[in-house]
Amino acid sequence: MTQDNLTAVLYKPKDLRLEQTPIPEIDDDEVLLRMDCVGICGSDVHYWQTGACGAFVMHEPMIMGHEASGVVAKTAPARRKDSLQSNALGSSETGLNSIKMRSKLTKSCVPCRYCEFCKSGRYHLCPDMRFCATPPIHGNLARYYKHAADFCYKLPPHVSMEEGALLEPLSVGIHACRRGGVAAGQSVLVLGAGPIGLVTMLAARAMGASKILITDILQSRLDFAKQLGADHTILVTRDASEEQLVQEVRRLLGDSPDVSIDASGAQATVRLALLATKSGGVAVLVGMGSPELTVPLAGSVAREVDIRGIFRYVNEYPIALSMVASGQINVKPLVTHHYTLEETLEAYEVARKGLGIKVMIHVQPRDTNNPQS
Amino acid sequence: MTQDNLTAVLYKPKDLRLEQTPIPEIDDDEVLLRMDCVGICGSDVHYWQTGACGAFVMHEPMIMGHEASGVVAKTAPARRKDSLQSNALGSSETGLNSIKMRSKLTKSCVPCRYCEFCKSGRYHLCPDMRFCATPPIHGNLARYYKHAADFCYKLPPHVSMEEGALLEPLSVGIHACRRGGVAAGQSVLVLGAGPIGLVTMLAARAMGASKILITDILQSRLDFAKQLGADHTILVTRDASEEQLVQEVRRLLGDSPDVSIDASGAQATVRLALLATKSGGVAVLVGMGSPELTVPLAGSVAREVDIRGIFRYVNEYPIALSMVASGQINVKPLVTHHYTLEETLEAYEVARKGLGIKVMIHVQPRDTNNPQS
Amino acid sequence: MTQDNLTAVLYKPKDLRLEQTPIPEIDDDEVLLRMDCVGICGSDVHYWQTGACGAFVMHEPMIMGHEASGVVAKTAPARRKDSLQSNALGSSETGLNSIKMRSKLTKSCVPCRYCEFCKSGRYHLCPDMRFCATPPIHGNLARYYKHAADFCYKLPPHVSMEEGALLEPLSVGIHACRRGGVAAGQSVLVLGAGPIGLVTMLAARAMGASKILITDILQSRLDFAKQLGADHTILVTRDASEEQLVQEVRRLLGDSPDVSIDASGAQATVRLALLATKSGGVAVLVGMGSPELTVPLAGSVAREVDIRGIFRYVNEYPIALSMVASGQINVKPLVTHHYTLEETLEAYEVARKGLGIKVMIHVQPRDTNNPQS
Amino acid sequence: MTQDNLTAVLYKPKDLRLEQTPIPEIDDDEVLLRMDCVGICGSDVHYWQTGACGAFVMHEPMIMGHEASGVVAKTAPARRKDSLQSNALGSSETGLNSIKMRSKLTKSCVPCRYCEFCKSGRYHLCPDMRFCATPPIHGNLARYYKHAADFCYKLPPHVSMEEGALLEPLSVGIHACRRGGVAAGQSVLVLGAGPIGLVTMLAARAMGASKILITDILQSRLDFAKQLGADHTILVTRDASEEQLVQEVRRLLGDSPDVSIDASGAQATVRLALLATKSGGVAVLVGMGSPELTVPLAGSVAREVDIRGIFRYVNEYPIALSMVASGQINVKPLVTHHYTLEETLEAYEVARKGLGIKVMIHVQPRDTNNPQS
Repeated sequence: MTQDNLTAVLYKPKDLRLEQTPIPEIDDDEVLLRMDCVGICGSDVHYWQTGACGAFVMHEPMIMGHEASGVVAKTAPARRKDSLQSNALGSSETGLNSIKMRSKLTKSCVPCRYCEFCKSGRYHLCPDMRFCATPPIHGNLARYYKHAADFCYKLPPHVSMEEGALLEPLSVGIHACRRGGVAAGQSVLVLGAGPIGLVTMLAARAMGASKILITDILQSRLDFAKQLGADHTILVTRDASEEQLVQEVRRLLGDSPDVSIDASGAQATVRLALLATKSGGVAVLVGMGSPELTVPLAGSVAREVDIRGIFRYVNEYPIALSMVASGQINVKPLVTHHYTLEETLEAYEVARKGLGIKVMIHVQPRDTNNPQS
Repeated sequence: MTQDNLTAVLYKPKDLRLEQTPIPEIDDDEVLLRMDCVGICGSDVHYWQTGACGAFVMHEPMIMGHEASGVVAKTAPARRKDSLQSNALGSSETGLNSIKMRSKLTKSCVPCRYCEFCKSGRYHLCPDMRFCATPPIHGNLARYYKHAADFCYKLPPHVSMEEGALLEPLSVGIHACRRGGVAAGQSVLVLGAGPIGLVTMLAARAMGASKILITDILQSRLDFAKQLGADHTILVTRDASEEQLVQEVRRLLGDSPDVSIDASGAQATVRLALLATKSGGVAVLVGMGSPELTVPLAGSVAREVDIRGIFRYVNEYPIALSMVASGQINVKPLVTHHYTLEETLEAYEVARKGLGIKVMIHVQPRDTNNPQS
Repeated sequence: MTQDNLTAVLYKPKDLRLEQTPIPEIDDDEVLLRMDCVGICGSDVHYWQTGACGAFVMHEPMIMGHEASGVVAKTAPARRKDSLQSNALGSSETGLNSIKMRSKLTKSCVPCRYCEFCKSGRYHLCPDMRFCATPPIHGNLARYYKHAADFCYKLPPHVSMEEGALLEPLSVGIHACRRGGVAAGQSVLVLGAGPIGLVTMLAARAMGASKILITDILQSRLDFAKQLGADHTILVTRDASEEQLVQEVRRLLGDSPDVSIDASGAQATVRLALLATKSGGVAVLVGMGSPELTVPLAGSVAREVDIRGIFRYVNEYPIALSMVASGQINVKPLVTHHYTLEETLEAYEVARKGLGIKVMIHVQPRDTNNPQS
Repeated sequence: MTQDNLTAVLYKPKDLRLEQTPIPEIDDDEVLLRMDCVGICGSDVHYWQTGACGAFVMHEPMIMGHEASGVVAKTAPARRKDSLQSNALGSSETGLNSIKMRSKLTKSCVPCRYCEFCKSGRYHLCPDMRFCATPPIHGNLARYYKHAADFCYKLPPHVSMEEGALLEPLSVGIHACRRGGVAAGQSVLVLGAGPIGLVTMLAARAMGASKILITDILQSRLDFAKQLGADHTILVTRDASEEQLVQEVRRLLGDSPDVSIDASGAQATVRLALLATKSGGVAVLVGMGSPELTVPLAGSVAREVDIRGIFRYVNEYPIALSMVASGQINVKPLVTHHYTLEETLEAYEVARKGLGIKVMIHVQPRDTNNPQS
């Protein structure tokens, strides 16, 4: 296989290059994927612009990309039976010819499998987690990429590759809602109507939230959120006081929200989450803002408002897939821009400018692996 | 008030009479309701036919009815402020003239408020619970009925009185799903497609279940369930073995169900619930069958399948109302028959024969209090 | 009954007076208590010194005292059977002569019983909670005091009145541990070795915590904590950096603590709780410090360290009683000072100076109602 | 290494032989253990007598033993760093000379690490679990045995090899209590005072249970349980009716137990667990009895008594070790008989006859690796 493996490699801040890299060799519990769709995430833009995201700092060139879907190109001959059977790879399991295989896959991350976090169902907190495009681990914005087979999930025929790639951010939204205990009949406040705020809103609705209020500082985002199903919106302006915003939240929802989910990370939205949430409720913090925040903790403590952060997702990929495959969550409208792998820099530029919601890079010609309508 | 208070009183098994009773006097924390809709439940038919239901046995004449909605006719002048404010009775709070009040209400039950169950959020297990039409407590199939104000829930204008009455059985379905931990992306097996099986199915979907399989012994009920949204159905016949049924469940769902909910109470369905549920999953038992059952416990124990019974509902009435008001659950199709209070015996006869799904008795002329389309 | 009812009334900051007040009349669900022991809490000292505690501000004279035990002096003749039977008042139930009754009781607080918090098992968050010595509700530092019978708990003969009074702060400690999910085999970090830190430590141990590390800024408190069972202690000094403290916590416990419980409220200890807790663990905030805190939230969010505040306790009084009655928790050593009701001002002065741990006021002659050794 | 590896091999029912087997070769994530103590479990006796236990049936010769402790004899040179660091093997990590290593270990089981159960923290339900002395997996009653390093737990110097071996059954008791939600202040009914009933009782106490009542059909076992800390006992006789037993349980505990744990598996005790447990409580089924049981399910369903089976344990080994190391649980008195590996048949005979509580086989000369007193 001396095939084309065009790859998007970030050498240093603002130095993102497309170049050929070797196609990876797979281990017994891995599969080789011919990538199809790779979305651009806010963290990708952060690495590109600054070489870092939160506590993670890039020290060497890194392949970008982690919101992805692809097609099985190769499986290991001596593959562990138990590692793959639950993912139902079906006909691809015995074949090794990449031309004939068409099992569409979407992928997740790989933890160590040995530590106490891995054993207790919280593998996302594994200190040895290898996560795509998080230094020093390479991502999958390339023609070919290998991944642990049991962390790949087979897409049913009617689910598109774009939807497959969007399972990644959707898993974050589902994790946020699960951590928040979002449940039937609840009212939910979502702070921030960017991609993560929007998938969180979709997840909350699908989990039974009866009333969802979303806030943002851009009216265009709120309009989009309204189309996607938000019951109420608040355009946050500089002159609105915290007390006014809390009152407005209560007025629109008829009561304080049971759960608030901050998808922004700004001090102002974290504060509003703590202040607005109903006594005994939960404030979920998804956004990663500045390391230090000044917050009205005493008030939320005295009202027993739980504060729960989230880190990526855990065991939510299959849930996201089920929800999309059943039609309970429709993520398709989130993709507002499409580019080819060769147009990667242009795509990143659009993402950086915050135009649209989700920018999708097509590593293979668009619709090659999609269901035909 | 020497008004008409026609009331359906069960004197003894098969002796259900319509007669005038005194309009009740209300206490400080109660309201008088002019009843509108009262549905007929399986337990009502049991009392009517046998004078008993499960461990509850009738010793004196009892007013029937517990799935109900009505309109506030009278509130107490010295009513506790705190007991009502959370139910937002609004303009009705100060008025005493029954003619002018139009706050539509749906009602629940009344526990003692003092025992450890009441204090720990499980008031439905309160040993002193007073529950309508459960001996020796009278029900509400009458023109007038009084109830604890804080256990009445105000219906928004667009929710009909029929929907208000259906919040009662829907609360059972929601409680069953909450007890089962039904969650986003799960597959759920519902055993029995009667009214409770159907509301359970609706609740499971609204809480995020991706795949729902429902079983029954009548094809007509399965057809109805399919229309209401079931993904799969199994018609259970006498000649199907348990092993065959378990395999069929797995085949249709692609795996064992995460949660099984028995809404039948028959030994056969309870057994199937235990056998079919995924290891580590939950089998919820809603149906009340014979006191003693022979079940394959050792197998479910070794697979850590939890068995959880349910008794009515607790704190689920407001959830049911939110889900119906938001349109996430549509209970309207469940009502297949309508009768006036004067036609009560005929209505009960239809319910006894199992014709249709839900038989609704209109205590006031139909649509009097409903939103105008 | 024109008996002596000497009462400690706080008129305004630093103006605490002993004076006669009328003996209260009881309602049907109440009992009259002849008070025996009343401990002094940090909040009492706050009210005394400043007229406020957290968000609660005194506007009128208020009777002090809320950590208390007493003897039933009078029960209501028409008392609701169901409200009392679960508390097993036994022989006192029918008698009305205060001389002959000797049911020792310890008491809790009274919520509205009607709101959604009361119905869902979180009555401590009831917005209409009436809590002793929290403005505008009077406390029980008096010869006589009336209380809701179902929030009184009968002490077994071998439990002393001092222990009865200490059930109140112990309930806070148990609530903190329950909120933190303290469980068998865990390691727990307790920040602050004052009375609340110490009862929290005792509760954590009784709930199965294997390793407990407690910190304080006073060596004398750490020495006392060590005697009460702390495995490890850290004397926090001004020159220790946060990083050094986190490392020292890890070194002593062998790993990061599963749960950290801040019983101080200072910004420094809240920060240490967030920084030191294991990924996926819980930081419980008990102390009420300044309204605004600057904390390293992003780090704890990314490690999914839950932050949970606590407000008093809920359903923990009976647990505290069981644990003390069974000998699993020994609170006796906490009482370091004893005063009579007449010496109340002296007692408060000792509490204000932070001498010893718990100051106990004996409203009746000491040991009158205690078991005889 | 052509050393002695005397091994206890069960060829077929009642055909248990001691013979030499090859010392196993270790993989990169394994360690070779020189076994020290191996206890005999009821399941061992079942396999020995019948060739089966529950659904597990022996088809080929199988090495016995699964309650075990040993000493690290060899570690893999290329061992994965991440698989072992959390177990703190310390000085043994680099050495390969079995003579010099003295890290005492106790061991658990090995799941596949790839399936949904392994990823969600319930690896004990992994369908590919390899568990010692459960067909077709060999056990560890031999001089040498290899095991996954991350499922070995290092014993601190003051914990004896006998205690190390007892961590296995103790983990079952802890799992039973965790599944039952045993919590501070609760009353617990344990049915059956054999080894599992006793470790369950010890675990329940250490987790905060205030009142423990244990039942059995042998007074000698109840006497032993009383010495180990049971608050109350009931000797179950043939002529006691279920109703009488339920009343006696209530009388002794003062109320119905919050949690009942059946460690017997007999229909009579399972029935008593369901009947006696408090409404809203939990009945845990540990014992494996006959596949079909006739039980009063309707009553427990209507009182929302949860029924939870348990299968071995999950993530409880480290908890058991912490509890024993801290002295919160003392398992030493459970060992009533000691035998050498050469005396294995005699030891099994004693276990079969039910003499004493726990029979321990010493594979190395007793106290070789124990702390010196």
